[in-house]
Amino acid sequence: MRYFKLTVAYDGKSYVGWQAQNNGLSVQVTLEQAWLKLTGEKRRITASGRTDSGVHAEAQVCSVRTESSLPSSVFLKGLNAYLPDDIVVIGAEEMPGDFHAIRDALGKTYRYQIQSGPIRNVLARDFWWYVPPHLDVAAMRSGAKFLVGKHDFAAFQTTGSDRLTTVRTVTELRLEYREEPPFQWVQIFISADGFLYNMVRCIAGTLAEVGKGKHPPEWCREVLQSCDRTRSGPTAPPHGLCLISVDYPKTSP
Amino acid sequence: MRYFKLTVAYDGKSYVGWQAQNNGLSVQVTLEQAWLKLTGEKRRITASGRTDSGVHAEAQVCSVRTESSLPSSVFLKGLNAYLPDDIVVIGAEEMPGDFHAIRDALGKTYRYQIQSGPIRNVLARDFWWYVPPHLDVAAMRSGAKFLVGKHDFAAFQTTGSDRLTTVRTVTELRLEYREEPPFQWVQIFISADGFLYNMVRCIAGTLAEVGKGKHPPEWCREVLQSCDRTRSGPTAPPHGLCLISVDYPKTSP
Repeated sequence: MRYFKLTVAYDGKSYVGWQAQNNGLSVQVTLEQAWLKLTGEKRRITASGRTDSGVHAEAQVCSVRTESSLPSSVFLKGLNAYLPDDIVVIGAEEMPGDFHAIRDALGKTYRYQIQSGPIRNVLARDFWWYVPPHLDVAAMRSGAKFLVGKHDFAAFQTTGSDRLTTVRTVTELRLEYREEPPFQWVQIFISADGFLYNMVRCIAGTLAEVGKGKHPPEWCREVLQSCDRTRSGPTAPPHGLCLISVDYPKTSP
Repeated sequence: MRYFKLTVAYDGKSYVGWQAQNNGLSVQVTLEQAWLKLTGEKRRITASGRTDSGVHAEAQVCSVRTESSLPSSVFLKGLNAYLPDDIVVIGAEEMPGDFHAIRDALGKTYRYQIQSGPIRNVLARDFWWYVPPHLDVAAMRSGAKFLVGKHDFAAFQTTGSDRLTTVRTVTELRLEYREEPPFQWVQIFISADGFLYNMVRCIAGTLAEVGKGKHPPEWCREVLQSCDRTRSGPTAPPHGLCLISVDYPKTSP
């Protein structure tokens, strides 16, 4: 048996999310179909984590086992030949041991993009959430500081998920900001050892409330400590969210 | 009679181009419908120049005359309330005299975007032309130099256009370049006093041939001097092209 690590980018707009579902086409099924066409094998391709409907990825990491005898070097070009315009394999690496995309992941980084300012930017609308008319980024940064570290993030998840614990460690929560009148561009980068369901979108929605001046930065701490989802801001829409990277141990397992 | 200067951004993907046509929806007609809804007036809105089907604009400039008595300040928000997601008015200014978007234009700047590298970037595909596998940007820059200045650009137009002269002055032709493996990002900025039909796309297609190493940089000079469209490179696709700005005299006419 051979083990492969695939790094995959996708525009999530047209998909029901990563995971196979009955209500539409998923990234997973599309990738598994390309795998079948290339290798003749019907294989389960496992991603580091699900992404929701409409969420994008610059570098989702997946694992797949194969008995194919194709040379390692053909997988990247071969899979891409069978993939549609909005999914591409950017890395296909044969792993020395039993690589598993979920089990071996140390952490992930997501990016949430918000465009603000008095005018919506029509060329950015597929990947940026538009929040008029102006965001106080300094206040957002102050609020974000309360969320860094090991905390119970129960207030920042969509209820109904079946995680055993809602404690996660946010290792970095950084806001990049660019002003190009009449547009404001805010990128939220968040790294953690794991994420609850809709956690990044809940945090983005909460920081947007602070940016709009509806709540002071300290409100983020109150919401966090409450462990109460009804206290936090709205869940930001999926199109602003993108999975940026997944971390694995330097020496592959 | 009052005169307005409108600055408009649009994603050209879903339109047959700026100009009203029989074969689909144009940006012009969509904007004129918003004007009608806001003011009650059926007016012709004139752009600085047509953009083709699928071509975008960050700041197209238009002129329109009106007898509306609405205060100047309401036009921007009012028009945007009636426009779809992919068109937005970013400026609406009442002009002191008879402003005309075509007659008064001194020049324009377009940007053509090319993504290269061994892997296509799926998140950039709506606004970047993908040209695999690698572009020699130094060679493209050398080739571009031959096109700066006052020349007969007959070799860089789609034949059939009815311009009186094919002489234009390119005041700037600049390539910006960023390498983010496995992606290469090339932006061609071109400013001129006027453009022939498909001129930027012909130039982009020609420079791409140089970047791919199919021709040396000096080939750009040969093509230019030939005044023969069959000598130049292919017309690059519309989705990489965007009208960036239109210049007018500092003191408004």
